[in-house]
Amino acid sequence: MESCIKQFSLINEINIRVRYEETDKMGFVYYGKYFTWFEVGRTELFRELGLPYRSFEERGIMLPVTEADCRYKSSARYDDIVTIKTWVTRLSPVRIHFGYQILSEDQKVLAYGNTEHAFVDYTGRPVNLSKKDNEMWKKIKNLLDLDDSE
Amino acid sequence: MESCIKQFSLINEINIRVRYEETDKMGFVYYGKYFTWFEVGRTELFRELGLPYRSFEERGIMLPVTEADCRYKSSARYDDIVTIKTWVTRLSPVRIHFGYQILSEDQKVLAYGNTEHAFVDYTGRPVNLSKKDNEMWKKIKNLLDLDDSE
Amino acid sequence: MESCIKQFSLINEINIRVRYEETDKMGFVYYGKYFTWFEVGRTELFRELGLPYRSFEERGIMLPVTEADCRYKSSARYDDIVTIKTWVTRLSPVRIHFGYQILSEDQKVLAYGNTEHAFVDYTGRPVNLSKKDNEMWKKIKNLLDLDDSE
Amino acid sequence: MESCIKQFSLINEINIRVRYEETDKMGFVYYGKYFTWFEVGRTELFRELGLPYRSFEERGIMLPVTEADCRYKSSARYDDIVTIKTWVTRLSPVRIHFGYQILSEDQKVLAYGNTEHAFVDYTGRPVNLSKKDNEMWKKIKNLLDLDDSE
Repeated sequence: MESCIKQFSLINEINIRVRYEETDKMGFVYYGKYFTWFEVGRTELFRELGLPYRSFEERGIMLPVTEADCRYKSSARYDDIVTIKTWVTRLSPVRIHFGYQILSEDQKVLAYGNTEHAFVDYTGRPVNLSKKDNEMWKKIKNLLDLDDSE
Repeated sequence: MESCIKQFSLINEINIRVRYEETDKMGFVYYGKYFTWFEVGRTELFRELGLPYRSFEERGIMLPVTEADCRYKSSARYDDIVTIKTWVTRLSPVRIHFGYQILSEDQKVLAYGNTEHAFVDYTGRPVNLSKKDNEMWKKIKNLLDLDDSE
Repeated sequence: MESCIKQFSLINEINIRVRYEETDKMGFVYYGKYFTWFEVGRTELFRELGLPYRSFEERGIMLPVTEADCRYKSSARYDDIVTIKTWVTRLSPVRIHFGYQILSEDQKVLAYGNTEHAFVDYTGRPVNLSKKDNEMWKKIKNLLDLDDSE
Repeated sequence: MESCIKQFSLINEINIRVRYEETDKMGFVYYGKYFTWFEVGRTELFRELGLPYRSFEERGIMLPVTEADCRYKSSARYDDIVTIKTWVTRLSPVRIHFGYQILSEDQKVLAYGNTEHAFVDYTGRPVNLSKKDNEMWKKIKNLLDLDDSE
């Protein structure tokens, strides 16, 4: 069952420096690069949780993106420091959702977005994490502070 | 007024070959690259319309992305030929919206999505295209086959 | 023995359209993107030879880059069509070298460069192609029109 | 005159975390991405010198790459921390050269390379920095600890 589960409270924050390569001829960061930054945020959130994304792949579980969106409010520029905020918005045994904010140094929201991921095995087939790897499922559920009744 | 305007019927189709650089260690195309493909589609749609995107920039008008989303149904792989289908879904004097489909060689939908763009001037300030460059506005409106009553 | 083998005469030519994503805030194509274009050229040369790079990987052989260089003579811009010329400059059972030219529509050389690749197995260990997969070695050697005395 | 000038002693070191986006289906970092890392190193070296690259562009001077090369000794993987070492190898009023090393966490050299840059104005025309902007030229020369006799 993929019922909505309460919002997870941990928010990871990581700062990155905008690369020249990430800009385009308009002079600002190319819109597709924000999705790379979302990935940087996800990686750091998983690490902060004590569950590096690497460890999923080492156990044969991958989390390909099934949906992604971003809204752009203001521009990021070369050499700016931007903050990526990442948190889990939903979790079920078959899917995990993340929310993101990209902030400027003066804490203005430059962009925000979401990604949805399926749990799949190495063949790319969707799996129910609680059945495929219950240890991992319990770990992530506990870290997200969810009890069994939910 | 930004009222919805009837769906534009022209659909641009362009084929591209998946690059090794576009893949990631999961073995498929990285999710952020689809937004580059959407850009390729937009560029070709504008060209097919007889209004190359270059010509907008030459007239001091830029179309930064204000929203973007993508849904991923199946994976694209290195060396695959994929088809990008692009069409205009909405047009107003201040904004233009595009729809996209990414298809495999056997016409399976791999992904689909949308982008929304604002018309802005070189300083990045939003403009009303019909006021800023009425010639361009009329051209694009006529190409989209819209009458004044809309 | 990795002795130099005579220059292979087949030159692959493929045209690509410069993407907005490939530009940077200087207004031209970012220098690192030329190496992606070299990869596009290699892929097409292998295809033209009847030995798609995919087929190497399917047989457990990969060709990671061990050296790469590029000289930039003039700029490529968004929406330009550029021609990638690719050819083999050296072949041995353990290594393959490619030469590249990037040309503008009026046949001006925008950049040129080289890459060197090792034959490795799936573990990343260097292999002697003539021992690891003699069928593949003979095929590529014959396609490059080399006799055994070389 | 573009005579070789003594090696500059300052070496900038910056650590970055390898992004999933930077990997390819071989499982390691794509060879072209190292040139983005070189750019990250250059940016940080300029900052450490007290001459952010931004400040060059604000004064109408750009440093496009005229040559770039990289040798790959070992692979970088997703989520690795790599160190980028960057230093100036040559300076003249018309050109600046950088050397780079990419190191693993246990200080193994994964790759090393060089870039050469021309000083150009906003039109892309090469300039002699000592004539175009003598203040900037003196600054950079002094920072590199060179006397006038050189």
